[in-house]
Amino acid sequence: MRRFVIGQAKNLIDQTRQARHESLRLLSLLAASDSAPVLSSPRLFSSSSDMSGSDSSSSSSLPVTLDSLNPKVLKCEYAVRGEIVNIAQKLQEDLKINKDAYPFDEIIYCNIGNPQSLGQQPITFFREVLALCSHTALLDESATHGLFSSDSIDRAWKILDQIPGKATGAYSHSQGIKGLRDAIAAGIEARDGFPADPNDIFMTDGASPGVHMMMQLLISSEKDGILCPIPQYPLYSASIALHGGSLVPYYLDEASGWGLEISELKKQLQDARSKGITVRALVVINPGNPTGQVLAEENQREIVDFCKKEGLVLLADEVYQENVYVPDKKFHSFKKVARSMGYGEKDVCLVSFQSISKGYYGECGKRGGYMEITGFTSDVRAQIYKLASVNLCSNISGQILASLVMSPPKPGDDSYDSYIAEKEGILSSLAKRAKTLEEALNKLEGVTCNRAEGAMYLFPCINLPQMAIAAAEAAKTAPDAFYCKRLLNATGIVVVPGSGFRQVPGTWHFRCTILPQEDKIPAIVNRLTEFHKSFMDEFRN
Amino acid sequence: MRRFVIGQAKNLIDQTRQARHESLRLLSLLAASDSAPVLSSPRLFSSSSDMSGSDSSSSSSLPVTLDSLNPKVLKCEYAVRGEIVNIAQKLQEDLKINKDAYPFDEIIYCNIGNPQSLGQQPITFFREVLALCSHTALLDESATHGLFSSDSIDRAWKILDQIPGKATGAYSHSQGIKGLRDAIAAGIEARDGFPADPNDIFMTDGASPGVHMMMQLLISSEKDGILCPIPQYPLYSASIALHGGSLVPYYLDEASGWGLEISELKKQLQDARSKGITVRALVVINPGNPTGQVLAEENQREIVDFCKKEGLVLLADEVYQENVYVPDKKFHSFKKVARSMGYGEKDVCLVSFQSISKGYYGECGKRGGYMEITGFTSDVRAQIYKLASVNLCSNISGQILASLVMSPPKPGDDSYDSYIAEKEGILSSLAKRAKTLEEALNKLEGVTCNRAEGAMYLFPCINLPQMAIAAAEAAKTAPDAFYCKRLLNATGIVVVPGSGFRQVPGTWHFRCTILPQEDKIPAIVNRLTEFHKSFMDEFRN
Repeated sequence: MRRFVIGQAKNLIDQTRQARHESLRLLSLLAASDSAPVLSSPRLFSSSSDMSGSDSSSSSSLPVTLDSLNPKVLKCEYAVRGEIVNIAQKLQEDLKINKDAYPFDEIIYCNIGNPQSLGQQPITFFREVLALCSHTALLDESATHGLFSSDSIDRAWKILDQIPGKATGAYSHSQGIKGLRDAIAAGIEARDGFPADPNDIFMTDGASPGVHMMMQLLISSEKDGILCPIPQYPLYSASIALHGGSLVPYYLDEASGWGLEISELKKQLQDARSKGITVRALVVINPGNPTGQVLAEENQREIVDFCKKEGLVLLADEVYQENVYVPDKKFHSFKKVARSMGYGEKDVCLVSFQSISKGYYGECGKRGGYMEITGFTSDVRAQIYKLASVNLCSNISGQILASLVMSPPKPGDDSYDSYIAEKEGILSSLAKRAKTLEEALNKLEGVTCNRAEGAMYLFPCINLPQMAIAAAEAAKTAPDAFYCKRLLNATGIVVVPGSGFRQVPGTWHFRCTILPQEDKIPAIVNRLTEFHKSFMDEFRN
Repeated sequence: MRRFVIGQAKNLIDQTRQARHESLRLLSLLAASDSAPVLSSPRLFSSSSDMSGSDSSSSSSLPVTLDSLNPKVLKCEYAVRGEIVNIAQKLQEDLKINKDAYPFDEIIYCNIGNPQSLGQQPITFFREVLALCSHTALLDESATHGLFSSDSIDRAWKILDQIPGKATGAYSHSQGIKGLRDAIAAGIEARDGFPADPNDIFMTDGASPGVHMMMQLLISSEKDGILCPIPQYPLYSASIALHGGSLVPYYLDEASGWGLEISELKKQLQDARSKGITVRALVVINPGNPTGQVLAEENQREIVDFCKKEGLVLLADEVYQENVYVPDKKFHSFKKVARSMGYGEKDVCLVSFQSISKGYYGECGKRGGYMEITGFTSDVRAQIYKLASVNLCSNISGQILASLVMSPPKPGDDSYDSYIAEKEGILSSLAKRAKTLEEALNKLEGVTCNRAEGAMYLFPCINLPQMAIAAAEAAKTAPDAFYCKRLLNATGIVVVPGSGFRQVPGTWHFRCTILPQEDKIPAIVNRLTEFHKSFMDEFRN
């Protein structure tokens, strides 16, 4: 029906063949030991730093070799921190030694949603509470009142009262501190207008461990499939590979702004079933990563119905719920959508992932988050609880931040005005940056870029000249990775090749965050525009 | 040669048979759905809180049921947070409502090494630095100098200078912040007298994720075995089960103070190999958990030689390295031992796990730690790096604490005297508590208890009367779990049954931490003594 949908069946068959070919190639590389070229071997992920005395690949007497490792680990890929980031780190080290080493004076990391690494300031109230909970003796000092807002002091006391013995250095309940889960449940209720149960909340070190836990639970073998959007955030492909399952792809329709079509879901589900795969779950990332679209509520209803009808767990990655930049779109949680359709606990299995790393807070390094699980039987929940218990608990600083993110200052609180100013400043600036970058990308020859309605990324499509593709092939690298490496070496800008997220075969993309501070954006646009022009000039057919 | 070694061959055969029987029983329970009794079914781990509207076990329309879950998850057990803790949490809730509900007024958690939950205070210097790094605006305020020690301010600045953009809210390098790894490596060098490379350090959210990462790397199937001490910390059995490997047990000799005999290692290794299992690694926990012994250096040398000769990775759980309580024992890291034997990077594959949760710091809730990996080829290291990257990074607060633990205040620093006083106060008190509890346990009828040379636990052997064993069988529970539940219900003291750690079949133990504050110890001793007497009176043959 639209340009990318046509030919998908064929593409998929090609892709499956390609994947098999890739596996065989990997195996033969492994057999041929470590003489394989760096770019295409498992060395792709080699550590950024060379270690004197540590490079003992040739030592055959050691008990661990690549061919004795878990093959699932070898199969797993994670492009967001892959080869290009390693090159960037190397260039950065070089620049420290000689600031004139390259035609740019700094590396600009647009590869990862890591706002504070690019200068975004944390929300003051959150950090005040965290400091007070970290060093509780401050609460007994009168000087503290001059240094902290009064509501941060109140909140710290309230949080400490919820922790047995006020011990922020103790392991908590495996699901997280009950009082903090109460605050999160209240925040979910306020957001959705439907009840939330603190016993449904499992606090996690960021969203990733929650995703791993669900994959571990649902995947027994390669006969278990997980429907994932393509393009997807590579955590999903990595986690499915590590747990030995099958990623069942469904393609987002780039031409309709990365639309999610139920007909495509049905088709891929049938296709997987015909291959003997039991599809266990559907992953939906909303707002989208790397694609930035925000789903319409009507579309979400169809998705919920699809999961209910087909018996799939709906794994809703909702970590960008606060990142919506366009007035015509609004975030709706899948739980709210399901409840508003009249579906209750016994109708739909739903897991919603939230993280403190995204939103306007961007507290990536604090590793906090939660998953809200609904629709699971008590015996299955007990197994999830057990998995959480094996790792004891998520970190308490992250737990505290997760509760704050879901229960920020309210009107009338001492911090409220400054909190709102900080929050809106960040979100409106992100919206502006998204727009500027999108417009700049769309001006480039052969580049089309959907708008970032939400999340933190743009995912432009680059129509690469045939000569560039041939040059990439000669360099034994994917054409978009070839482009991204050239971009890095020419400008210091780090983006992630579309091939790291998967894409419709034969199309090429990259993911670029919208996170550099506003004052850097004009320079980025200029450097990117110049680079692109010279690249196209070099490879124009 | 000693009382427990005799008969081990027979015991092991019995145990293997028992394990197979247990698997079959579990499978049949699963097939019989959820009508199985709570104590022996997978519901053992059911969440502590009942949820209104969530108990939908009967809803057969939901897509996820126990029999569709990953069987490795079902197989995994984790007793430290198992059924008895759930009962304890229930009793605690009851006591909140009615303080006279039971013959005790509080629950005393001796089940888990969680010092701050029992009143241990954090080290002030560590928390000062953490607060300053959490809310860096404090560093610009003059009032801060009145509230913080001068070296905590200096240290916070030093740490912030090591973080790109001073952004403690940003994801770090996948292995952890380089400057913090430098501090850790320097701390290891100071401890061992041998070089340590910051590039060998992988920072983790506590020790557990590091252990999982290594198991994930080494285990492909049940044909891969990991030699584990019995008794063992159940993280190891849980992680091996989750990754689908085989736990190859070696028995510690209780009669010789939980001695680790090389002859036993050899025997079990041969036995596993004869069953077609490739043994990949040897786990050694030193100081021991749950057993509390500290290995002699000579014994460690034999272990290193054994691993080298047999081609095993040595997984050294060294999280209790600061917890040694007896003058005749000293902690030596396995790396120091290996290097002092002349073995370098190319001779032995060694992973040392360290955690901020233990020692005198006990910062469990902060989830920090690291593993130092040596002797791996660069291509294998690249795979470990990739696994670390998939989860982005460990939490920065934990990273900061891990660096502080390995580089605490030095003589002359503003905090030094108070730091030393806090540290020595905690460690000498722990030693005293260990001694008092050990002596009290040894006075009980039919109980023998090795001394806690290190770590945080006592693991007494209880010679249970035949009638108690029969009563436990009738209650469908392990005899030591029966004892521990009776203890909990009579006294409010929570300990973990030996069966959760595995033990020589036919022997019964429990693990009790030495962590309750000193002023609680007399009451614990009294309650335990009284309970034990009445239990023995009740079941005396």
